[in-house]
Amino acid sequence: MLKKPRLFTAGPTPLHPEAIRAAAGPVPYHRTPEFAACFDRIQFGLRDAFRTQGPVAVLTSSGTGAMEAALASLFSAGDRVVVVAGGKFGARWVEIAVAYGLEVLELTLAPGELVVPADVAVMVEHSAPVRGLFLTASETSTGTICDVRAIVDAVRDVEPEVVTVVDAITSVGALPIATDEWGLEAVVGGAQKAFMIPPGLAFVACSPRGWELIGNRSASPRYYLDLAKYAASAEKSQTPFTPGIGLLLALEASLKAIDEVGGIQALERNADRLATACRAAMVALDLQLLSSAPSPAVTAIKAPVSGTGPDIVAAMRDHYGAQLSGGQGELKDHIFRIGHIGYVDDLDLLAVLAALEGVLADRGHDVSMGAGMAAAVASLASGQGHEGSTR
Amino acid sequence: MLKKPRLFTAGPTPLHPEAIRAAAGPVPYHRTPEFAACFDRIQFGLRDAFRTQGPVAVLTSSGTGAMEAALASLFSAGDRVVVVAGGKFGARWVEIAVAYGLEVLELTLAPGELVVPADVAVMVEHSAPVRGLFLTASETSTGTICDVRAIVDAVRDVEPEVVTVVDAITSVGALPIATDEWGLEAVVGGAQKAFMIPPGLAFVACSPRGWELIGNRSASPRYYLDLAKYAASAEKSQTPFTPGIGLLLALEASLKAIDEVGGIQALERNADRLATACRAAMVALDLQLLSSAPSPAVTAIKAPVSGTGPDIVAAMRDHYGAQLSGGQGELKDHIFRIGHIGYVDDLDLLAVLAALEGVLADRGHDVSMGAGMAAAVASLASGQGHEGSTR
Repeated sequence: MLKKPRLFTAGPTPLHPEAIRAAAGPVPYHRTPEFAACFDRIQFGLRDAFRTQGPVAVLTSSGTGAMEAALASLFSAGDRVVVVAGGKFGARWVEIAVAYGLEVLELTLAPGELVVPADVAVMVEHSAPVRGLFLTASETSTGTICDVRAIVDAVRDVEPEVVTVVDAITSVGALPIATDEWGLEAVVGGAQKAFMIPPGLAFVACSPRGWELIGNRSASPRYYLDLAKYAASAEKSQTPFTPGIGLLLALEASLKAIDEVGGIQALERNADRLATACRAAMVALDLQLLSSAPSPAVTAIKAPVSGTGPDIVAAMRDHYGAQLSGGQGELKDHIFRIGHIGYVDDLDLLAVLAALEGVLADRGHDVSMGAGMAAAVASLASGQGHEGSTR
Repeated sequence: MLKKPRLFTAGPTPLHPEAIRAAAGPVPYHRTPEFAACFDRIQFGLRDAFRTQGPVAVLTSSGTGAMEAALASLFSAGDRVVVVAGGKFGARWVEIAVAYGLEVLELTLAPGELVVPADVAVMVEHSAPVRGLFLTASETSTGTICDVRAIVDAVRDVEPEVVTVVDAITSVGALPIATDEWGLEAVVGGAQKAFMIPPGLAFVACSPRGWELIGNRSASPRYYLDLAKYAASAEKSQTPFTPGIGLLLALEASLKAIDEVGGIQALERNADRLATACRAAMVALDLQLLSSAPSPAVTAIKAPVSGTGPDIVAAMRDHYGAQLSGGQGELKDHIFRIGHIGYVDDLDLLAVLAALEGVLADRGHDVSMGAGMAAAVASLASGQGHEGSTR
């Protein structure tokens, strides 16, 4: 029996065929006018994706490296910051901030809980002066979004100078984030999510004020992760250090492919309608979502019997070749997650839902076979979720 | 006229075809037993390359990121260190050390000058207490090696506890570096040199004492570049953050290919005999080397008329599609460099030498056409340089 390996994780995500092709050949030397032109095209596409006019730093690193670059380039030891931590990646902001000697106030959420913007503002006001605010636009570990714009607006009412840094690694290309319009000092993205290329690159976009603050030089020690170096090199259509050249060729191709299907907005709509259909299927299958504010990038689903999350993930992989994400940390046994960010289409979603119905029925769960599929098909046909990009 | 693009730079270097093939397909999910097995095979190959028994940290970053990881994981602000700086990459150690608040004593060399081990020892002794020593085994900007073992031995005579960190980015696979036997606390390598894969990964190997010191935790702030995290994850056959998965697949394939031609020693011999032949050709062409201790990885050649370095590099690229490296910084106008590290063979070298003769003659230089080729052929046939690996 053939079994094609298929990725339904929250990252890495399936690669775009044009990206595979672009990265498949020899690697060119990068200090040439040809490569500079390629880098400029990449900058153009990334500015669109992050909704910014300024340069977008392109780091050869995982997303975590770019998170650290944003923090170290904007903050110094002793700065008091508020971190909204709703899961593993919110906790990562705390860990990095602690490593750099920041004074961290943590607003901890229950897994899947939607943060109330006013609660963040109250915490900031009561802890004044607060210099920084760290958010996770889409918390991948719980499949939960937050309303970045509303939080920033509420916090600025009480602390106008607050410096906002957003982990948008699984948001860009799924949940619209407007770096410049919303005045976000730093927004972090990653390659292996909506950008449809292999992991190894990460991005930081900054509002004009963000770049200005970075130019003022924080006291945090840094060199490779110094965003000022990336901005200065981008002016010359280069990176400060030898980049992942093959990955940049892939990125150029995937940005072109994204443009051809209608740009980043089309990608956001695609993720949103798949997420909407996925949730409709879960309701029809009587499965519960972990999140009260579910993400367009990844859906976190409670295992029907507590403790069976890993078994469902294993069965999906072993029987169908479909790789889901399991839970992380304390959620390990209790949830499984289906990714639908990036290069995923309707048929992919229907296929994974059909497999899930089969796996659940195999395990003796009371599944009304076909109910999830039918709900998803109806949702996709109705165009629900189409308004994702205007959220 | 066809013109195949060919890389003769000091990095990126030509890719091994098996590495291209391995990285050409879809990217698998990395938190699986299959990927862990792949990572273990990579660890096995890297331990061989760095001559170490311990784990080798695999960072998704450029080589500079790994240099910084070694420094930040071993040193704290205020530590006094000696840096032997013979060019751009020695200067990079100084820049990173300054960024982290280390007290830096710089032993500056003229471009191409061989450092005398006793001079380093004298500097360390006169500046006691010195906690760290930073070396560049092969300074790519000038094509110059240093005798790492002799320097370390001399310095340990006067400062037994000195912590030695070696930039071996263009040394591993060309110039033997014995991490454990020589007691090097950290040795840094890069993917796009002898490992025949695209840029985007970098490595740090450590002696047992090096890992012990890293376990003691320096005071330098760090998170993504914290080597302790990489060692802990390697125990579980993983990386701490989502790695460049495609590049790791390529690395697995290239390490297998290296093993099949006789291991890292065969690669070192290959580079050494190509370098020896390249130098013989330069002598026959009456061209002068920049370096008094030339590297097996890259040969730096003085332009026959000062100021014509960039013109020669441009002509080689435009007429023959052969990409050499130019000079960097103050050497920009005065030298050009031919790389022969990694996936380069005799015919590659002869081809680039023939093209160089043509370009020089075109420019009116007094070239005895064929003399360089003949000297190189004779050198290759004689097996000169074969003893590279026992240096």
